[in-house]
Amino acid sequence: MAHIDLGLDEKEFPGIIGPMRFRPETAKPLNELAEVLLRGPHTLSRGERELIAAYVSGGNECRFCCASHSAFAAAQLDGGAAVVDQVITDPGSAPISAKLRALLRIAATVRLDGRQVTAELVAAARAEGATDVEIHDTVLIAAAFCMFNRYVDGLATLAPEDPDAYAMNARRIVESGYGV
Amino acid sequence: MAHIDLGLDEKEFPGIIGPMRFRPETAKPLNELAEVLLRGPHTLSRGERELIAAYVSGGNECRFCCASHSAFAAAQLDGGAAVVDQVITDPGSAPISAKLRALLRIAATVRLDGRQVTAELVAAARAEGATDVEIHDTVLIAAAFCMFNRYVDGLATLAPEDPDAYAMNARRIVESGYGV
Repeated sequence: MAHIDLGLDEKEFPGIIGPMRFRPETAKPLNELAEVLLRGPHTLSRGERELIAAYVSGGNECRFCCASHSAFAAAQLDGGAAVVDQVITDPGSAPISAKLRALLRIAATVRLDGRQVTAELVAAARAEGATDVEIHDTVLIAAAFCMFNRYVDGLATLAPEDPDAYAMNARRIVESGYGV
Repeated sequence: MAHIDLGLDEKEFPGIIGPMRFRPETAKPLNELAEVLLRGPHTLSRGERELIAAYVSGGNECRFCCASHSAFAAAQLDGGAAVVDQVITDPGSAPISAKLRALLRIAATVRLDGRQVTAELVAAARAEGATDVEIHDTVLIAAAFCMFNRYVDGLATLAPEDPDAYAMNARRIVESGYGV
Protein backbone atom coordinates (compact mmCIF):
# COMPACT_ATOMS: atom_id res chain seq x y z
CA MET A 1 0.00 0.00 0.00
CA ALA A 2 1.28 3.46 -0.86
CA HIS A 3 2.62 5.69 1.94
CA ILE A 4 -0.13 8.27 1.33
CA ASP A 5 -3.84 7.94 0.61
CA LEU A 6 -4.01 8.37 -3.16
CA GLY A 7 -7.81 8.21 -3.07
CA LEU A 8 -8.03 5.42 -5.66
CA ASP A 9 -7.73 1.67 -6.19
CA GLU A 10 -4.00 1.01 -6.60
CA LYS A 11 -4.64 -2.20 -8.51
CA GLU A 12 -6.43 -0.14 -11.12
CA PHE A 13 -3.91 2.71 -11.03
CA PRO A 14 -0.54 1.13 -10.12
CA GLY A 15 2.97 2.66 -10.06
CA ILE A 16 3.28 6.27 -11.15
CA ILE A 17 -0.34 6.40 -12.36
CA GLY A 18 -1.74 6.74 -8.81
CA PRO A 19 0.39 9.75 -7.71
CA MET A 20 -0.20 11.35 -11.12
CA ARG A 21 -3.98 11.17 -10.58
CA PHE A 22 -3.52 12.38 -6.99
CA ARG A 23 -1.57 15.47 -8.08
CA PRO A 24 -2.45 16.43 -11.68
CA GLU A 25 -0.62 19.77 -11.35
CA THR A 26 2.74 17.97 -11.18
CA ALA A 27 1.65 15.15 -13.53
CA LYS A 28 1.29 17.63 -16.39
CA PRO A 29 4.97 18.69 -16.66
CA LEU A 30 6.14 15.15 -15.80
CA ASN A 31 4.17 13.70 -18.70
CA GLU A 32 5.26 16.51 -21.00
CA LEU A 33 8.90 15.83 -20.12
CA ALA A 34 8.50 12.10 -20.85
CA GLU A 35 6.73 12.88 -24.14
CA VAL A 36 9.47 15.25 -25.39
CA LEU A 37 12.36 13.06 -24.24
CA LEU A 38 11.03 9.63 -25.22
CA ARG A 39 8.69 10.32 -28.14
CA GLY A 40 9.46 13.77 -29.62
CA PRO A 41 11.18 14.18 -33.02
CA HIS A 42 14.70 12.74 -32.68
CA THR A 43 17.65 11.02 -34.34
CA LEU A 44 17.39 8.27 -31.68
CA SER A 45 14.34 6.07 -32.24
CA ARG A 46 11.56 5.87 -29.65
CA GLY A 47 12.63 2.30 -28.93
CA GLU A 48 16.24 3.37 -28.29
CA ARG A 49 15.16 6.14 -25.92
CA GLU A 50 12.76 3.85 -24.02
CA LEU A 51 15.66 1.38 -23.77
CA ILE A 52 17.81 4.01 -22.01
CA ALA A 53 14.89 4.65 -19.61
CA ALA A 54 14.43 0.92 -18.93
CA TYR A 55 18.17 0.40 -18.45
CA VAL A 56 18.48 3.24 -15.90
CA SER A 57 15.34 2.05 -14.07
CA GLY A 58 16.82 -1.46 -13.95
CA GLY A 59 20.00 -0.06 -12.42
CA ASN A 60 17.92 1.72 -9.78
CA GLU A 61 15.96 -1.51 -9.25
CA CYS A 62 12.63 0.29 -9.70
CA ARG A 63 10.37 -2.62 -10.58
CA PHE A 64 7.42 -0.64 -11.92
CA CYS A 65 9.48 1.74 -14.11
CA CYS A 66 11.82 -0.99 -15.38
CA ALA A 67 8.96 -3.33 -16.34
CA SER A 68 6.98 -0.46 -17.88
CA HIS A 69 9.75 1.03 -20.00
CA SER A 70 11.09 -2.42 -20.91
CA ALA A 71 7.64 -3.17 -22.36
CA PHE A 72 7.53 0.24 -24.12
CA ALA A 73 11.03 -0.36 -25.54
CA ALA A 74 10.28 -3.95 -26.61
CA ALA A 75 7.19 -2.77 -28.51
CA GLN A 76 9.21 -0.23 -30.52
CA LEU A 77 12.67 -1.76 -30.93
CA ASP A 78 14.13 -4.20 -33.48
CA GLY A 79 14.66 -7.46 -31.62
CA GLY A 80 11.91 -6.74 -29.09
CA ALA A 81 11.94 -8.06 -25.53
CA ALA A 82 14.96 -10.34 -26.04
CA VAL A 83 17.22 -7.37 -26.83
CA VAL A 84 15.76 -5.28 -24.00
CA ASP A 85 16.37 -8.06 -21.45
CA GLN A 86 19.91 -8.52 -22.72
CA VAL A 87 20.66 -4.79 -22.47
CA ILE A 88 19.43 -4.71 -18.88
CA THR A 89 21.50 -7.71 -17.79
CA ASP A 90 24.60 -7.13 -19.94
CA PRO A 91 24.64 -4.14 -22.30
CA GLY A 92 28.22 -4.95 -23.32
CA SER A 93 27.17 -8.06 -25.24
CA ALA A 94 23.71 -6.95 -26.45
CA PRO A 95 23.13 -6.66 -30.23
CA ILE A 96 22.78 -2.87 -30.33
CA SER A 97 24.73 -0.19 -32.19
CA ALA A 98 28.11 0.93 -30.88
CA LYS A 99 26.66 4.44 -30.53
CA LEU A 100 23.79 3.27 -28.34
CA ARG A 101 26.20 1.19 -26.24
CA ALA A 102 28.38 4.28 -25.66
CA LEU A 103 25.30 6.33 -24.73
CA LEU A 104 24.21 3.63 -22.25
CA ARG A 105 27.63 3.92 -20.59
CA ILE A 106 26.99 7.64 -20.10
CA ALA A 107 23.48 6.91 -18.77
CA ALA A 108 24.81 4.36 -16.27
CA THR A 109 27.32 6.92 -15.00
CA VAL A 110 24.74 9.71 -14.67
CA ARG A 111 22.58 7.30 -12.67
CA LEU A 112 25.34 6.87 -10.10
CA ASP A 113 26.56 10.49 -9.97
CA GLY A 114 26.55 13.15 -12.69
CA ARG A 115 30.01 14.32 -11.65
CA GLN A 116 31.49 10.99 -12.75
CA VAL A 117 30.74 11.59 -16.43
CA THR A 118 34.17 12.13 -17.99
CA ALA A 119 35.28 13.85 -21.18
CA GLU A 120 36.51 10.38 -22.27
CA LEU A 121 33.03 8.82 -21.96
CA VAL A 122 31.58 11.68 -23.99
CA ALA A 123 34.37 11.49 -26.59
CA ALA A 124 33.78 7.73 -26.95
CA ALA A 125 30.09 8.36 -27.73
CA ARG A 126 31.01 11.11 -30.18
CA ALA A 127 33.53 8.78 -31.89
CA GLU A 128 30.60 6.40 -32.58
CA GLY A 129 28.63 9.22 -34.17
CA ALA A 130 26.63 10.60 -31.21
CA THR A 131 25.57 14.22 -31.63
CA ASP A 132 25.46 16.89 -28.93
CA VAL A 133 21.65 16.62 -28.75
CA GLU A 134 21.87 12.82 -28.39
CA ILE A 135 24.42 13.18 -25.58
CA HIS A 136 22.34 15.92 -23.92
CA ASP A 137 19.16 13.86 -24.10
CA THR A 138 20.88 10.71 -22.84
CA VAL A 139 22.08 12.62 -19.77
CA LEU A 140 18.61 14.08 -19.23
CA ILE A 141 16.76 10.75 -19.77
CA ALA A 142 19.07 9.09 -17.23
CA ALA A 143 18.64 11.99 -14.80
CA ALA A 144 14.85 12.04 -15.30
CA PHE A 145 14.56 8.34 -14.49
CA CYS A 146 16.54 8.91 -11.30
CA MET A 147 13.57 11.18 -10.50
CA PHE A 148 10.75 8.93 -11.75
CA ASN A 149 12.22 5.87 -9.98
CA ARG A 150 12.50 7.72 -6.65
CA TYR A 151 9.01 9.19 -7.06
CA VAL A 152 7.43 5.75 -7.61
CA ASP A 153 9.43 3.93 -4.92
CA GLY A 154 9.57 6.81 -2.40
CA LEU A 155 5.77 6.67 -2.22
CA ALA A 156 5.79 2.84 -2.11
CA THR A 157 3.31 2.50 -4.96
CA LEU A 158 2.18 -0.88 -6.26
CA ALA A 159 4.17 -2.69 -8.98
CA PRO A 160 1.93 -5.34 -10.62
CA GLU A 161 3.34 -8.88 -10.86
CA ASP A 162 1.36 -9.66 -14.02
CA PRO A 163 3.38 -8.92 -17.22
CA ASP A 164 0.08 -8.32 -19.04
CA ALA A 165 -0.45 -5.12 -17.06
CA TYR A 166 2.74 -3.66 -18.57
CA ALA A 167 1.99 -5.00 -22.06
CA MET A 168 -1.42 -3.31 -21.95
CA ASN A 169 0.17 0.00 -20.92
CA ALA A 170 2.72 -0.41 -23.72
CA ARG A 171 -0.07 -0.56 -26.32
CA ARG A 172 -1.56 2.64 -24.89
CA ILE A 173 1.77 4.52 -24.80
CA VAL A 174 2.84 3.40 -28.28
CA GLU A 175 -0.53 4.48 -29.68
CA SER A 176 -1.30 7.64 -27.71
CA GLY A 177 1.88 8.74 -25.90
CA TYR A 178 2.23 10.14 -22.41
CA GLY A 179 -1.12 11.86 -22.35
CA VAL A 180 0.04 15.42 -22.94
CA MET B 1 33.79 23.68 -19.99
CA ALA B 2 30.58 21.73 -20.57
CA HIS B 3 30.82 18.29 -22.22
CA ILE B 4 28.77 19.48 -25.22
CA ASP B 5 28.82 22.68 -27.24
CA LEU B 6 25.94 24.67 -25.79
CA GLY B 7 26.44 27.42 -28.36
CA LEU B 8 26.69 30.20 -25.75
CA ASP B 9 29.01 31.89 -23.25
CA GLU B 10 28.87 29.71 -20.14
CA LYS B 11 29.92 32.60 -17.91
CA GLU B 12 26.80 34.43 -19.01
CA PHE B 13 24.57 31.31 -18.87
CA PRO B 14 26.04 29.06 -16.12
CA GLY B 15 24.68 25.88 -14.56
CA ILE B 16 21.31 24.68 -15.80
CA ILE B 17 20.69 27.87 -17.77
CA GLY B 18 23.03 26.80 -20.63
CA PRO B 19 21.42 23.38 -21.32
CA MET B 20 17.97 24.96 -20.96
CA ARG B 21 18.81 27.46 -23.72
CA PHE B 22 20.39 24.66 -25.79
CA ARG B 23 17.22 22.51 -25.59
CA PRO B 24 14.13 24.71 -25.01
CA GLU B 25 11.80 21.74 -25.72
CA THR B 26 12.91 20.01 -22.50
CA ALA B 27 13.42 23.29 -20.61
CA LYS B 28 9.69 24.04 -20.82
CA PRO B 29 8.41 21.08 -18.73
CA LEU B 30 11.45 21.29 -16.42
CA ASN B 31 10.68 24.92 -15.60
CA GLU B 32 6.97 24.17 -15.27
CA LEU B 33 7.75 21.36 -12.80
CA ALA B 34 9.96 23.67 -10.72
CA GLU B 35 7.30 26.39 -10.78
CA VAL B 36 4.49 24.08 -9.58
CA LEU B 37 6.60 22.32 -6.95
CA LEU B 38 8.52 25.28 -5.54
CA ARG B 39 6.21 28.25 -6.12
CA GLY B 40 2.63 27.03 -6.75
CA PRO B 41 -0.16 27.45 -4.15
CA HIS B 42 0.81 25.36 -1.12
CA THR B 43 0.66 24.88 2.65
CA LEU B 44 4.49 24.81 2.69
CA SER B 45 5.95 28.26 2.04
CA ARG B 46 8.13 28.94 -1.01
CA GLY B 47 11.09 29.34 1.34
CA GLU B 48 10.45 25.92 2.92
CA ARG B 49 10.18 24.20 -0.46
CA GLU B 50 13.35 25.89 -1.77
CA LEU B 51 15.06 24.74 1.44
CA ILE B 52 14.19 21.10 0.65
CA ALA B 53 15.62 21.63 -2.86
CA ALA B 54 18.82 23.20 -1.47
CA TYR B 55 19.20 20.47 1.16
CA VAL B 56 18.90 17.64 -1.40
CA SER B 57 21.28 19.42 -3.79
CA GLY B 58 23.75 19.82 -0.91
CA GLY B 59 23.52 16.09 -0.22
CA ASN B 60 24.24 15.38 -3.90
CA GLU B 61 27.11 17.90 -3.75
CA CYS B 62 25.79 19.75 -6.79
CA ARG B 63 27.48 23.10 -6.35
CA PHE B 64 25.38 25.09 -8.82
CA CYS B 65 21.99 23.78 -7.63
CA CYS B 66 22.86 23.97 -3.94
CA ALA B 67 24.14 27.55 -4.16
CA SER B 68 21.19 28.59 -6.36
CA HIS B 69 18.41 27.10 -4.24
CA SER B 70 20.15 28.13 -1.01
CA ALA B 71 20.00 31.71 -2.28
CA PHE B 72 16.35 31.28 -3.36
CA ALA B 73 15.48 29.79 0.06
CA ALA B 74 17.40 32.47 1.99
CA ALA B 75 15.51 35.22 0.14
CA GLN B 76 12.12 33.74 1.11
CA LEU B 77 12.64 32.15 4.53
CA ASP B 78 12.50 33.56 8.07
CA GLY B 79 16.10 33.56 9.32
CA GLY B 80 17.57 33.86 5.83
CA ALA B 81 20.97 32.45 4.85
CA ALA B 82 21.97 31.55 8.42
CA VAL B 83 19.10 29.08 8.74
CA VAL B 84 19.68 27.69 5.25
CA ASP B 85 23.38 27.06 5.95
CA GLN B 86 22.52 25.41 9.26
CA VAL B 87 19.95 23.11 7.60
CA ILE B 88 22.47 22.02 4.99
CA THR B 89 25.20 21.24 7.55
CA ASP B 90 23.03 19.91 10.40
CA PRO B 91 19.25 19.88 9.92
CA GLY B 92 18.81 18.20 13.34
CA SER B 93 19.82 21.36 15.21
CA ALA B 94 18.50 24.01 12.80
CA PRO B 95 15.73 26.35 14.05
CA ILE B 96 12.97 25.01 11.80
CA SER B 97 9.60 23.46 12.59
CA ALA B 98 9.39 19.83 13.69
CA LYS B 99 7.23 19.17 10.61
CA LEU B 100 9.84 20.55 8.21
CA ARG B 101 12.57 18.58 9.99
CA ALA B 102 10.55 15.36 9.54
CA LEU B 103 9.98 16.19 5.86
CA LEU B 104 13.73 16.80 5.40
CA ARG B 105 14.37 13.30 6.78
CA ILE B 106 12.08 11.90 4.09
CA ALA B 107 13.83 14.02 1.44
CA ALA B 108 17.27 12.80 2.54
CA THR B 109 16.07 9.19 2.27
CA VAL B 110 14.53 9.67 -1.19
CA ARG B 111 17.83 11.18 -2.32
CA LEU B 112 19.67 7.97 -1.42
CA ASP B 113 17.04 5.47 -2.61
CA GLY B 114 13.26 5.81 -2.74
CA ARG B 115 12.84 2.24 -1.51
CA GLN B 116 14.35 3.21 1.85
CA VAL B 117 11.43 5.50 2.76
CA THR B 118 9.67 3.63 5.58
CA ALA B 119 6.13 3.83 6.96
CA GLU B 120 7.78 5.04 10.21
CA LEU B 121 9.42 8.05 8.50
CA VAL B 122 6.08 8.96 6.92
CA ALA B 123 4.19 8.45 10.19
CA ALA B 124 6.70 10.70 12.00
CA ALA B 125 6.03 13.50 9.51
CA ARG B 126 2.29 12.98 9.80
CA ALA B 127 2.56 13.12 13.62
CA GLU B 128 4.05 16.61 13.24
CA GLY B 129 1.10 17.68 11.11
CA ALA B 130 2.33 16.91 7.57
CA THR B 131 -0.48 16.32 5.06
CA ASP B 132 -0.52 13.78 2.23
CA VAL B 133 0.13 16.55 -0.32
CA GLU B 134 3.08 17.83 1.72
CA ILE B 135 4.54 14.31 1.93
CA HIS B 136 3.90 13.73 -1.79
CA ASP B 137 5.54 17.00 -2.77
CA THR B 138 8.52 16.45 -0.47
CA VAL B 139 9.15 13.08 -2.16
CA LEU B 140 8.79 14.67 -5.61
CA ILE B 141 10.96 17.72 -4.81
CA ALA B 142 13.71 15.39 -3.53
CA ALA B 143 13.33 13.13 -6.57
CA ALA B 144 13.29 16.10 -8.96
CA PHE B 145 16.53 17.48 -7.55
CA CYS B 146 18.14 14.07 -8.03
CA MET B 147 17.33 14.79 -11.68
CA PHE B 148 18.32 18.47 -11.82
CA ASN B 149 21.61 17.79 -9.98
CA ARG B 150 22.55 14.97 -12.39
CA TYR B 151 21.53 17.07 -15.39
CA VAL B 152 23.75 19.99 -14.35
CA ASP B 153 26.74 17.88 -13.28
CA GLY B 154 26.39 15.16 -15.94
CA LEU B 155 26.95 17.85 -18.59
CA ALA B 156 29.78 19.45 -16.53
CA THR B 157 28.28 22.92 -16.69
CA LEU B 158 29.91 25.90 -15.01
CA ALA B 159 29.17 26.72 -11.35
CA PRO B 160 30.14 30.38 -10.68
CA GLU B 161 32.41 31.04 -7.66
CA ASP B 162 30.96 34.52 -7.09
CA PRO B 163 28.05 34.47 -4.57
CA ASP B 164 26.65 37.59 -6.28
CA ALA B 165 25.76 35.50 -9.34
CA TYR B 166 23.39 33.40 -7.21
CA ALA B 167 22.00 36.40 -5.32
CA MET B 168 21.19 38.06 -8.64
CA ASN B 169 19.36 34.93 -9.84
CA ALA B 170 17.49 34.80 -6.52
CA ARG B 171 16.09 38.29 -7.12
CA ARG B 172 14.88 37.20 -10.56
CA ILE B 173 13.31 33.94 -9.33
CA VAL B 174 11.60 35.57 -6.32
CA GLU B 175 10.18 38.28 -8.55
CA SER B 176 9.31 36.38 -11.75
CA GLY B 177 9.49 32.63 -11.04
CA TYR B 178 10.85 29.87 -13.23
CA GLY B 179 9.94 31.54 -16.48
CA VAL B 180 6.86 29.48 -17.36
